[in-house]
Amino acid sequence: MDPRVVEAMQPYFTDFYGNASSLNSFGFKAKEALEKSRETIAEFMNAEASELIFTGSATEANNLVLKGHAFKEGKSKCHIAVSSVDHDCVLLSAKWLKRQGFKITILPVDKYGFLDLDALEKTLEENVTLVSVVHGNNEIGTIQPIEEITRVCHEHGALFHTDAVQSFGKLAIDVRKIKIDFMTINGHKLYGPKGVGALFKRKGRELDTLIHGGGHEFGLRSGTENIPAIVGFAKAVELREGEMEAEARHLTNMRNKLIKATLEIEETYLNGHRTKRLTNNTNFRFSYIEGEAVVLSLGSEGIAASSGSACSSKSAEPSHVLLAIGLKPEEARGSLRISIGKYNTEEDIDYIIQVLPKIVKRLRAMSPLKD
Amino acid sequence: MDPRVVEAMQPYFTDFYGNASSLNSFGFKAKEALEKSRETIAEFMNAEASELIFTGSATEANNLVLKGHAFKEGKSKCHIAVSSVDHDCVLLSAKWLKRQGFKITILPVDKYGFLDLDALEKTLEENVTLVSVVHGNNEIGTIQPIEEITRVCHEHGALFHTDAVQSFGKLAIDVRKIKIDFMTINGHKLYGPKGVGALFKRKGRELDTLIHGGGHEFGLRSGTENIPAIVGFAKAVELREGEMEAEARHLTNMRNKLIKATLEIEETYLNGHRTKRLTNNTNFRFSYIEGEAVVLSLGSEGIAASSGSACSSKSAEPSHVLLAIGLKPEEARGSLRISIGKYNTEEDIDYIIQVLPKIVKRLRAMSPLKD
Repeated sequence: MDPRVVEAMQPYFTDFYGNASSLNSFGFKAKEALEKSRETIAEFMNAEASELIFTGSATEANNLVLKGHAFKEGKSKCHIAVSSVDHDCVLLSAKWLKRQGFKITILPVDKYGFLDLDALEKTLEENVTLVSVVHGNNEIGTIQPIEEITRVCHEHGALFHTDAVQSFGKLAIDVRKIKIDFMTINGHKLYGPKGVGALFKRKGRELDTLIHGGGHEFGLRSGTENIPAIVGFAKAVELREGEMEAEARHLTNMRNKLIKATLEIEETYLNGHRTKRLTNNTNFRFSYIEGEAVVLSLGSEGIAASSGSACSSKSAEPSHVLLAIGLKPEEARGSLRISIGKYNTEEDIDYIIQVLPKIVKRLRAMSPLKD
Repeated sequence: MDPRVVEAMQPYFTDFYGNASSLNSFGFKAKEALEKSRETIAEFMNAEASELIFTGSATEANNLVLKGHAFKEGKSKCHIAVSSVDHDCVLLSAKWLKRQGFKITILPVDKYGFLDLDALEKTLEENVTLVSVVHGNNEIGTIQPIEEITRVCHEHGALFHTDAVQSFGKLAIDVRKIKIDFMTINGHKLYGPKGVGALFKRKGRELDTLIHGGGHEFGLRSGTENIPAIVGFAKAVELREGEMEAEARHLTNMRNKLIKATLEIEETYLNGHRTKRLTNNTNFRFSYIEGEAVVLSLGSEGIAASSGSACSSKSAEPSHVLLAIGLKPEEARGSLRISIGKYNTEEDIDYIIQVLPKIVKRLRAMSPLKD
């Protein structure tokens, strides 16, 4: 978290601790902070405050849009199409809905992870009511052309949702310009707090409720409002306003330097597209070795990396994203993701560039796969 | 929030910010804090750590147990019975399930809000699979005999869930002794953080998932673990250990003093039971005047009170709890809840006792209902 975000949250832990739904002065103060935060975040994406629903996470927001759409439309009408490279929270929500009897289609992608637009158009002819495609992929960084996808969806009468958790605050997203119907974002991917997410829901679009109760968040998400986290989320977004562009340049430079140097290691490949990718994301695969072994070796040199998404680290299965772009299971297992953050420096990148080739060389020397 | 809780959370905002599901040193540190917190809270209720599922709120935990049970059992088998004085998050989840075709029964209560045990037994003969009854009522403070209710449910083969948000940390609850199947708790009702709740799920009991994704929380609740909030929740519980008993005496004394003095105002009644009620709760009704008018008048004297639950403050409807105990709508609207906290002093109570009768007198003088 950005220390300025932590600081902004502090008064709401102890001084302004009221329940935003209480009709007393403590409650009014909390309510004021809630609505000001809603405005700050909405403004940043050019939405209206009433179009933003706070949730406890992006995962919850993604569940809300898929399940909320399905139960609103009903089994006879609902047809949801999701991309094969979406996050597990979208894919597993879709698969759960399928088990309940809803119509679900999984859309293929090309070798970079871009949505197959021909397959999309073909599927859309089957009365699709909602399409969900991740904006910036959390594993391979691929950025989808969501403006074009939205247009195609709308031409066929389908609504469009994007999970923009990885891209929001890194890229400018104007929901009035893109005319997107739903968009998921969260706090902790932009140096804000964990435990808070939000769903942009365009005015007039309807969803059923996922979490029932006191009727908070326009009746769509009940539970006492988490004011400190929401205030922190808004502060994190507010900070993006002035810092996003310079930071994007800084991250892109570091990312490109890391990609260029790593691809000089022999039999090493980049997963995802070289340029149409998130500024902070790199994802490589190394023949003959396991990504997890590289992660552990980097760890012992003080470098935190991952072999897939953190969310799937409990699973021994190879990444569904890497399989979806056509990798073989052993290629997927040979993959390594290094994410860069705004607190990283050129020196950090130089250090990785110095350490990584040695690790790959050592692991390959021990590998039974390498002749 | 207790300042000691705020302090315990701080390192997890910036120093130990890792993703508890990441296989790197930042992740390991977060994972360690997560599991230690789980143990602390589980131990306090005499559960095993593996029986505790963290959620984003108590509302979510209540939704999880009702909907998770329904979808696990299926429409042909599931029959859920809930009390008429349960929180909206239980009642509205049940009503939503009913609209989806699940069998739901609402159980009546007596004039104090105690569950009608005869009605329970009669309903249980209709193959009930799950009963849900709030432990300590959030509006009128009534404490249900959950040990007896659990026993009756089990005799008829039904599982039992209690929403113990208001009682956990105020009363000792031993889930091994009470043999309860599911129990909902949260952080911010015991001076811990907002945005975190938990569901106790006895080993062997099964639920479907409400929020799908990366498979966090034993596959039952996905979303990046909110480590600072979970650490704060555990700290709040840990503090209860040594402070609960003395605090209960302090609160009970203040509560009884407030009840005794307020009932001296003529035509004033206590909602709920005189002694079998939460230590921190008082709820009165005054003939001829609106509770909301009393709330606003108290507010201008610096006293924060409420006319119902905060969660329902947006609604103009009279409290469903007060109607369920047999009050007429106008009696329900004439009700006032004053909750006491550990930071309150005898002087605070004396101040209310001095101010409240004057407010009631003034409002009654203006009331068209008062002859």
